[in-house]
Amino acid sequence: MSENTWSETEKKIVEETLKRAYERETQALMEKIREQANIMAEIDDAWRLHDLLSAKRHEIEGKYDDRESVLIFVLAQLLKEKWLQLKELEGLDRDKLSKIAALARM
Amino acid sequence: MSENTWSETEKKIVEETLKRAYERETQALMEKIREQANIMAEIDDAWRLHDLLSAKRHEIEGKYDDRESVLIFVLAQLLKEKWLQLKELEGLDRDKLSKIAALARM
Repeated sequence: MSENTWSETEKKIVEETLKRAYERETQALMEKIREQANIMAEIDDAWRLHDLLSAKRHEIEGKYDDRESVLIFVLAQLLKEKWLQLKELEGLDRDKLSKIAALARM
Repeated sequence: MSENTWSETEKKIVEETLKRAYERETQALMEKIREQANIMAEIDDAWRLHDLLSAKRHEIEGKYDDRESVLIFVLAQLLKEKWLQLKELEGLDRDKLSKIAALARM
């Protein structure tokens, strides 16, 4: 199966994995926001929190792209950033798994 | 003295008052950020905090304009928003005070 063709089983695995990765990443971000908000001492700290939120919102909204043509890259990036683990993708075609693992190391 | 001409004494009063108003408004904003951060339950709450910060940063950075030609309006707006009180401006020319008070009621 080509890297841009995904079986129903694979789609299901990816969907669940993306959901968990998104949950982890957004929970981690919320934790960071709470920490920064609670140590804020001056207004410049609030503007730094704003900068962080602007960057993370932009990044997260762009990253979880579930179009089949880009899934390999999306999964590789999330693996690289440790929001998912390779074993969560067990059940995908071996070529896809190798490619995701290789891209994540780049 | 015209409303765009400010004596040294007046400038000093305004400078101190603007500083206090800025301190109050930014402290209140930081308090609100902390509150919202601590009740955040899902990522959409974080994006709402981001929207609030974007709006307030833009508003605050534009508002504390200390050019003499706009001071009457700046002070009137801060009075209207209750970041300063009219009595903090005692010592300014009566015409300026009347104009500030009138504009703040508009």
